Amino acid sequence: MAGTIEPIARMVAALSHLPGIGQKSAQRLAYHIATLPLEEVRDLATALWQGRKAIRLCEACGNYAVGERCEICADEKRHNGQICVVRDPRDVMAVERMHEYRGLYHVLHGTLSPMDGIGPEDIRINELMERVKAGGVDEVILATNPDVEGEATAAYIARLLKPLGIKVSRIAHGVPVGSDLEYADEVTLSRAMAGRTEM
Amino acid sequence: MAGTIEPIARMVAALSHLPGIGQKSAQRLAYHIATLPLEEVRDLATALWQGRKAIRLCEACGNYAVGERCEICADEKRHNGQICVVRDPRDVMAVERMHEYRGLYHVLHGTLSPMDGIGPEDIRINELMERVKAGGVDEVILATNPDVEGEATAAYIARLLKPLGIKVSRIAHGVPVGSDLEYADEVTLSRAMAGRTEM
Repeated sequence: MAGTIEPIARMVAALSHLPGIGQKSAQRLAYHIATLPLEEVRDLATALWQGRKAIRLCEACGNYAVGERCEICADEKRHNGQICVVRDPRDVMAVERMHEYRGLYHVLHGTLSPMDGIGPEDIRINELMERVKAGGVDEVILATNPDVEGEATAAYIARLLKPLGIKVSRIAHGVPVGSDLEYADEVTLSRAMAGRTEM
Repeated sequence: MAGTIEPIARMVAALSHLPGIGQKSAQRLAYHIATLPLEEVRDLATALWQGRKAIRLCEACGNYAVGERCEICADEKRHNGQICVVRDPRDVMAVERMHEYRGLYHVLHGTLSPMDGIGPEDIRINELMERVKAGGVDEVILATNPDVEGEATAAYIARLLKPLGIKVSRIAHGVPVGSDLEYADEVTLSRAMAGRTEM
């Protein structure tokens, strides 16, 4: 690009690979980083690289961890009879923000998607089955996203778990709290109706 | 934050310092970076850190440079009788994108802003005066932003340059090409009227 020197072009190229950062934002960021004191840029680069190096997957649930077990699996106060199945570690954070759920998690690291060639072997379903078969699990809560892949993945896992005789549940779909009924899409609204509870 | 491990929290903290990246985007980015292969994160961190280290300011114009002179000042085909004064290196890139201007630049690295305690000594005005006094300059084009600080800075520099007997010009203000008159603010429209040219 005209007027851009090579170190900045390299920053732009690297930054524009990140999700949600287009060419324009990457340029703005690169030019900003160019004006930062050297130490600040070193700290940023170090946080990213050292941070990435320090992250492992929990051997039990697949959540991000620093050691062998994630903070949640290592917490003896959590109920290990409940396993909440989610797509990725970000979803663990979302459920944790609620400060209500006290069970454990199982992170699939993806959802079934035949179109993209992602089958049961590509996500951590076998690991889930092993955990359940090892015993001590009363309920598996399927909290994959309420989209096509998420629903298909939940249905697939439910089918595998049912014969084991444990409780398998799916998070409720409905109109988000605080939102306006007028703006709810039809599928959500129809799910909200179907899932209505007596008052 | 609940469910966030320390390496990710560190990434989020570092990323959220960048302009236009709030807490939510920083989190999304950090979780994405956590999923990237180690080499990709190393490349990103290296591009930022090595890039920042490689960037210097051109000794002549203050634009970003790799060596002593920026690519534009080092280009012998550029007309050194014209100097376009801009606030920062990003503006150099904006003017260069036009592929029309063939003169040199002078980057102020800021604009006068008494409210923020930024006076003439804090931006590269002395360096501009020295360049002009060294001779060979026919015209200085003031291309600071059309906002309060940009206008004040342009007016201040114009007052300093006028006694030296060189041409001092200001970029035109007006309705942006391709935009709708209806949506132009009054100040822009009034400038567009005042700056009208005969057809």
